[in-house]
Amino acid sequence: MSASRAGHSPRAALPVEPWCVREPSVDLTTLAQTESLFALSNGHLGLRGNLDEGEPNATPGTYLGSFFENHPLPYPEGGYGYPESGQTLVNVTNGKIMRLLVDDEPFDVRYGDLLTHERRLDLRGGVLERHVDWVSPAGKRVRVRSTRLVSFTHRAVAGIEYEVEAVGDPVRLILQSELVTNEAPPEVDSEDPRVAQALDNPLVAVSQDVEQGGVVMLHRTRQSGLTMAAGMDHEVHVDGRYDVEHDARPDWARTTIVTTLAPGERLRVVKYLAYGWSARRSEPALRDQVAAALTAARYAGWQGLVDSQRAYLDDFWGCADVEVDGDPVLQQAVRFSLFHVLQAGARSERRGIGAKGLTGTGYNGHTFWDIEGFVLPLLTLTAPDAAANALRWRASTLDLARQRAATLGLAGAAFPWRTIDGEETSAYWPAGTAAFHLNADIARAFEQYRRITGDDSLEVSCGLEVLVETARLWLSLGHHDRHGRWHLDGVTGPDEYTAVVDDNVFTNLMAARNLRAAADAVARHPEQSRTLGVTTEESAAWRDAAEAVHLPYDKELGVHPQCNSFTRYAEWEFTDPEDDRPLMLRAPYFQLYRKQVVKQADLVLAMQWFPDAFTDEERARNFDYYEKRTVRDSSLSAAAQSVIAARTGHLRLAHDYLHEAALVDLRDLHGNTSQGLHIASLAGAWNALVEGFGGMREDGERLRLEPTLPAAIDRLSFRLRWRGARVRVEITADEVRCSLPGQPDASADLLLYDELLTVTGAGEVVRPLRSREPLLPTPTQPPGRAPEPARTSADVVS
Amino acid sequence: MSASRAGHSPRAALPVEPWCVREPSVDLTTLAQTESLFALSNGHLGLRGNLDEGEPNATPGTYLGSFFENHPLPYPEGGYGYPESGQTLVNVTNGKIMRLLVDDEPFDVRYGDLLTHERRLDLRGGVLERHVDWVSPAGKRVRVRSTRLVSFTHRAVAGIEYEVEAVGDPVRLILQSELVTNEAPPEVDSEDPRVAQALDNPLVAVSQDVEQGGVVMLHRTRQSGLTMAAGMDHEVHVDGRYDVEHDARPDWARTTIVTTLAPGERLRVVKYLAYGWSARRSEPALRDQVAAALTAARYAGWQGLVDSQRAYLDDFWGCADVEVDGDPVLQQAVRFSLFHVLQAGARSERRGIGAKGLTGTGYNGHTFWDIEGFVLPLLTLTAPDAAANALRWRASTLDLARQRAATLGLAGAAFPWRTIDGEETSAYWPAGTAAFHLNADIARAFEQYRRITGDDSLEVSCGLEVLVETARLWLSLGHHDRHGRWHLDGVTGPDEYTAVVDDNVFTNLMAARNLRAAADAVARHPEQSRTLGVTTEESAAWRDAAEAVHLPYDKELGVHPQCNSFTRYAEWEFTDPEDDRPLMLRAPYFQLYRKQVVKQADLVLAMQWFPDAFTDEERARNFDYYEKRTVRDSSLSAAAQSVIAARTGHLRLAHDYLHEAALVDLRDLHGNTSQGLHIASLAGAWNALVEGFGGMREDGERLRLEPTLPAAIDRLSFRLRWRGARVRVEITADEVRCSLPGQPDASADLLLYDELLTVTGAGEVVRPLRSREPLLPTPTQPPGRAPEPARTSADVVS
Repeated sequence: MSASRAGHSPRAALPVEPWCVREPSVDLTTLAQTESLFALSNGHLGLRGNLDEGEPNATPGTYLGSFFENHPLPYPEGGYGYPESGQTLVNVTNGKIMRLLVDDEPFDVRYGDLLTHERRLDLRGGVLERHVDWVSPAGKRVRVRSTRLVSFTHRAVAGIEYEVEAVGDPVRLILQSELVTNEAPPEVDSEDPRVAQALDNPLVAVSQDVEQGGVVMLHRTRQSGLTMAAGMDHEVHVDGRYDVEHDARPDWARTTIVTTLAPGERLRVVKYLAYGWSARRSEPALRDQVAAALTAARYAGWQGLVDSQRAYLDDFWGCADVEVDGDPVLQQAVRFSLFHVLQAGARSERRGIGAKGLTGTGYNGHTFWDIEGFVLPLLTLTAPDAAANALRWRASTLDLARQRAATLGLAGAAFPWRTIDGEETSAYWPAGTAAFHLNADIARAFEQYRRITGDDSLEVSCGLEVLVETARLWLSLGHHDRHGRWHLDGVTGPDEYTAVVDDNVFTNLMAARNLRAAADAVARHPEQSRTLGVTTEESAAWRDAAEAVHLPYDKELGVHPQCNSFTRYAEWEFTDPEDDRPLMLRAPYFQLYRKQVVKQADLVLAMQWFPDAFTDEERARNFDYYEKRTVRDSSLSAAAQSVIAARTGHLRLAHDYLHEAALVDLRDLHGNTSQGLHIASLAGAWNALVEGFGGMREDGERLRLEPTLPAAIDRLSFRLRWRGARVRVEITADEVRCSLPGQPDASADLLLYDELLTVTGAGEVVRPLRSREPLLPTPTQPPGRAPEPARTSADVVS
Repeated sequence: MSASRAGHSPRAALPVEPWCVREPSVDLTTLAQTESLFALSNGHLGLRGNLDEGEPNATPGTYLGSFFENHPLPYPEGGYGYPESGQTLVNVTNGKIMRLLVDDEPFDVRYGDLLTHERRLDLRGGVLERHVDWVSPAGKRVRVRSTRLVSFTHRAVAGIEYEVEAVGDPVRLILQSELVTNEAPPEVDSEDPRVAQALDNPLVAVSQDVEQGGVVMLHRTRQSGLTMAAGMDHEVHVDGRYDVEHDARPDWARTTIVTTLAPGERLRVVKYLAYGWSARRSEPALRDQVAAALTAARYAGWQGLVDSQRAYLDDFWGCADVEVDGDPVLQQAVRFSLFHVLQAGARSERRGIGAKGLTGTGYNGHTFWDIEGFVLPLLTLTAPDAAANALRWRASTLDLARQRAATLGLAGAAFPWRTIDGEETSAYWPAGTAAFHLNADIARAFEQYRRITGDDSLEVSCGLEVLVETARLWLSLGHHDRHGRWHLDGVTGPDEYTAVVDDNVFTNLMAARNLRAAADAVARHPEQSRTLGVTTEESAAWRDAAEAVHLPYDKELGVHPQCNSFTRYAEWEFTDPEDDRPLMLRAPYFQLYRKQVVKQADLVLAMQWFPDAFTDEERARNFDYYEKRTVRDSSLSAAAQSVIAARTGHLRLAHDYLHEAALVDLRDLHGNTSQGLHIASLAGAWNALVEGFGGMREDGERLRLEPTLPAAIDRLSFRLRWRGARVRVEITADEVRCSLPGQPDASADLLLYDELLTVTGAGEVVRPLRSREPLLPTPTQPPGRAPEPARTSADVVS
């Protein structure tokens, strides 16, 4: 997975506030970034934070989860098994547009006088609000207030409340509420004319139906054969007379409302939007589905949608909120992170979750190991139903994964490195096909779900089969040498600057875990396993391979090479520490692969995910070794580094990395927030807080905690779900408090440090905080690659 | 470099004759192959063996050395340093066409009655002859005899003698002699529409000039900006009246000759063709250049061209001929090989030589390591001027190679893996950029030239700079580990089924040789080296690295892993021995790379090129080990395996491999002779005879010989040039004879087995042949991959 960092481009300050992200005045130079930051989504439907009036914009974006178009993948030199067809998330019919004309002058932030322009993403309310006070070039003043939401409770529905108030003079208003299809696309990142062609006007009009209060339009893609429907309906509230007209053409539909306002009078329009798509259902069925969603939305009413949105989020925050005293910057960033991770996954429901959620078309909207590796751990601990649905989607693609494995000459199932619908679309195999750890990441997510929720039903319905098929994959991928050690050769681990290697420690550990998990699951479900053809010989072979797995170790240096020979490779020469572009933009893969330079946590991630596989001394030495060689050209790195820094007692460094992970988008640290948010980094930030400072882990039986706290944070509390209980952990400078707030009858077994204890709803358990001393001095990073020191104070940031 | 083997498609028998390749009757199903086999070329101008009348054809082909068009290289996932522009040899203006109408009926082998149709490539005369006896559908009978040549002595000139005789009835003949540009291309092997576009009508008309006896036409390419000129001129010999007309349009020109013949009368037309191209010279200059070449050809006359062609070849065969008694199949194949290698290189003169010569557009006409690695050793020993010119071309691309090295973050010069003009165009870096051994192959060719010819001038003029810049490349590519051993990591050796590896033995040995050769050359030319900026520190560092080079060795198995860990990898499972398609067409690179399966001689090639780096025992064990794992999906393999089989005493196996190398095109063993001949395999066959059975090598001081002979060959003689002398070696069942025929005043020092002796022109030296006993049993090959047993008898073959 590639990163592009166009140089840190610090955004105009967004004030540090605990429960919202607010832009006090519109900044046209960072429109692309704010469109991503202010994106609303429920995982099924996503709206970028484009301005209501459509223009100016950087990237207009309306997305339906997994609604994609195909395009060819051309190779100058092809190879057997290369995917032939790419997939790209399509910008579908845009229902956000509300064009306002004030006495015939279009409202546009670039013209006239903008007295006020504030946007505010409310993390508790789940709405995007906008307040505008504008004087038209002709001198007419209006106040515009809009509120936009994408409903968590009405999966197919979004809504806009749009209110205009005349100030000072009477005005004639025309409000054009639109659906627009095939908007001019942003620049396509492809040299191939056929790719651009596939994404230029991707949708073919099927039908347009003007209904009572709006329009329903159907379109389909040319290649992928998917059909979508978008509908809008309106409520108009105004004291005086108004007229409404509807019009619809193949690629646009318009509801026009005209009225006049005296000073102080208001026009208030509620626009209900509904979307649906299907690869199989008929056009009438889709049309009716959208019409029904509109009916349900009208029935709920605007306030009903707002209220249920708030209730949904109250419930979420009750299970997931984090409080950080002493670091308001992190406080805001972590809530922002949680909110967007929830938005990405909440209602994706049997569709894949993209690495950018539905906030942009970066990575073509594809899902990667980001989701199972970084996002699902958070969702499993805070919104387990969303995690279960994401895993059900993976399982639903098993047939494609089996076909892919067969193409590759392997047994079992090989899930795709990047995809929308489950078909492999990765066009560079050393950083795609070869990164087989994805399969174990998926298996781990299933295991975590079962262990954290205590819910066995997912394993029964589909998890067992995934575990079995991935175990089969691993057994066919590995082999025993003549001394009986089990090896995985020619694979790529998480670090994409070291590809196609032998015995990547992370991958080998993950494969062994996958094999053992499958064998254990088979033992739990012997009947069902037999129907999958699993024999005792087969599951014994899985255990044998896991037992014999080879983990390279460099005795001279006392560190684990992340793969065979790694610690023998040449060191990277950092020639220009001022140049902070990713190395991949200024050096060929050839050079990166053969040197000791690490794009992202790999062995360090292995230490995060396998705390018991390393002694404290090994952990300290390994972290020291890899810190010197890790450039963090991937947004998937800082969170893992934060966790291991915390575990090795480098709390200040852990705090710095945590800031980097959490602020990746609020500060646009990789220069590509414009293309969508880094959902996995945001999830990783929460993981880093809870696993790093909270010291949380599960060992399959118990929830374990080894809390610690950096000096800059006065108090940290977090919440998570553990086998039905909602656990709250609060850490202060000298105490740890565990409780089950509001659950008088619940209880949970915890291992706090080395003390086994049971927390009940009756009251909190309080223990002294233990300090953690590092075994080695604080490690250093490559020139120019140290994380920015965490700045916790709001005014320093802005 | 990839191979595609469409299943052995045995051709209709071509009779086994010592000095020609003859097709007794036309076979339309193998037209594509015979067009390649019957191609004529002098290295500058190449004509595929298309029928005179243009149709039917498989691939019309007229090529000018290094005359190419650019096309884009699209990557679905690009990377830093990826070449952006491809190059393809262009099918230029076709001057071969002689359309004959007999009483208005076009002569076409598909219509009427073909009483005789014989084609014959005369390896001594250097001409392609054709004899036809045809009865038109209307019953008119003619005999057509044509002779075609591409002149070795007139570089820009080709000629056709075309004679028609009326048989039985009087006939009216119309002969249309043409130049045709932008012929419909054969199917383009690319999914990218822009590549097809670049090669569809690649030439833009510049001018057409009708001259006295013909036409000169100029065209230029759209992208690469090259201009070419083609001209034709005619002599007409007929007893009766005839008329001649000329016509020219942008993409074709026609000279029409009309006459009538009484039975027994003949029309004889000599067509002179001349070609030229330039990237820099003006259009008038090119037009004049071609006109001058036509004038020179007319001045020489047809017989003059034929005679000088024969004289040129007599001289060549006098230095290069091989005689093989007892194996007429091999006799023919080796002469065919020598002839085509000469055709590829004779007059390429400061242009690159393509892997297919000028016989087809396979591999887009690119040059690879094939040339320096396999072709130049032959040319250096038999036609050293051609070798010197090819090396001068390489040196002329040094600036591009330096730029490429800089792009890759390396010092010195990195020559392109595949190119026409010196710009890297390889689009798959693991089997392109990473195959750095090419640079040492080039350095080795310079060294061999100096040592074999004794001529220092090439080193002075350009070789020293190549040696210095490639040594600099290697020093920046390698590094010392903490124990002082020098490693080359992440490179690809000859075996393309094992790519991007550490410490490939072949590459490490080649790099060390390159470094030492550069240091030695610097010591020979201290002044000149200083102007290249070489210090004593620098050349000392080269020697140090060469001295410290790491060569992996598996002590347990007693063999050299071809790269680190190779002997630890999983074995390939050969599931279907009947499926002889190349593995790369049915397995992904991912699988091939991580297993012990070898596409082509790699460690075995190292043993061929570095006989002193291995003991006899190591050689025997290594050969045995790699034979079991080598599938020969590359045509570059069999010759090296033949040499090592001979050195390890497996003479019958050596003989089998020799047949495979020599018959690669005459038997179309890789199923792609249609796309052009495998020049390196043909050259390798000669190398295999001379190095394998002849036991020839040079150690920098002496020519060494350790002859042996397989049972099936009664007598083998070969010739080569050694420091000005023409050495002839003759091997029979019990004797070795060395002589300098026809050079009374010459002498040469030889090491025959372990006897140092001086051969003079006065008489031959005769010594007993020593037998060679293998240390191990005959090795085996993977299922279905054993070479066909050599069939030496002509009637068995046909």
